[in-house]
Amino acid sequence: MTADNSVNGTTSIAALNSPFIKALVLQIRGQDSYGFYRNWSDELILKAFVVPKKKKREIPIEGEVDAATQARILVFFRAIAARIEQETNLISQVVVDINHEGFGWALVFSGRLLLTVKTLRDAHRFGFESLEKLAEEGETFVQKGLDLVNRFPEVGKL
Amino acid sequence: MTADNSVNGTTSIAALNSPFIKALVLQIRGQDSYGFYRNWSDELILKAFVVPKKKKREIPIEGEVDAATQARILVFFRAIAARIEQETNLISQVVVDINHEGFGWALVFSGRLLLTVKTLRDAHRFGFESLEKLAEEGETFVQKGLDLVNRFPEVGKL
Repeated sequence: MTADNSVNGTTSIAALNSPFIKALVLQIRGQDSYGFYRNWSDELILKAFVVPKKKKREIPIEGEVDAATQARILVFFRAIAARIEQETNLISQVVVDINHEGFGWALVFSGRLLLTVKTLRDAHRFGFESLEKLAEEGETFVQKGLDLVNRFPEVGKL
Repeated sequence: MTADNSVNGTTSIAALNSPFIKALVLQIRGQDSYGFYRNWSDELILKAFVVPKKKKREIPIEGEVDAATQARILVFFRAIAARIEQETNLISQVVVDINHEGFGWALVFSGRLLLTVKTLRDAHRFGFESLEKLAEEGETFVQKGLDLVNRFPEVGKL
């Protein structure tokens, strides 16, 4: 890890080693068919997920949400699904639907049980204050999903 | 009803009076802010939902699914949601996500309970063999959803 790669100085080894961040990196590397990220550190790969408030304000919310941002949103929720799969052995699906104004839904479900329900606004500006915040918010969704599976296992298996 | 308006001769009064068809027409008329359909019969409004096999084959499945077809898919699932709301008093959400190849998902949910889960293929060709078939398939989704609400009322209210 070099100083050049550090993300606003907020990166900690703890966040990088959290189960959610590991799942997220795995999802991104797994889709990297052309080996584009092969020589990138995890931290560098995750850099685009960190969008502090000041930077957010600079991103225009007009026009279509760009493809890279849409891909980041999808992979964030796929990582949640992957973590829940790891813990429960239930297969999870992810559906993300964003309209032209950057509004929409992100859903993760198993069987007939919705593990994650997130309304999206200003999707153009999708990102997290820091790597810690990314790890934390991802893990919160995971825990909420796991809690639901534990309470309604039958619905998750439908 | 004049002969000109009849849909392939398969329309029956029974189908037009089914609760699902009534909900569907209500959804369409409710969105008709410019009064475009004001003087149209229900049957004429529903005509675009009837796409017999032969006609389906003529619709190319290349390129983006056209906006009118996307709107028809959305309103079909909104009518399912509306029917379930009528019967259960639960608020239902509809999420339809179709990619550029006409593949995707249509979901109807209340709380954390998925009432309808439908994978879409060749969405360009969305339609039903007849008005009866439209009524029947819609009502099947409704009944399945109601069955789930009855079995897992708690999840629907989350």
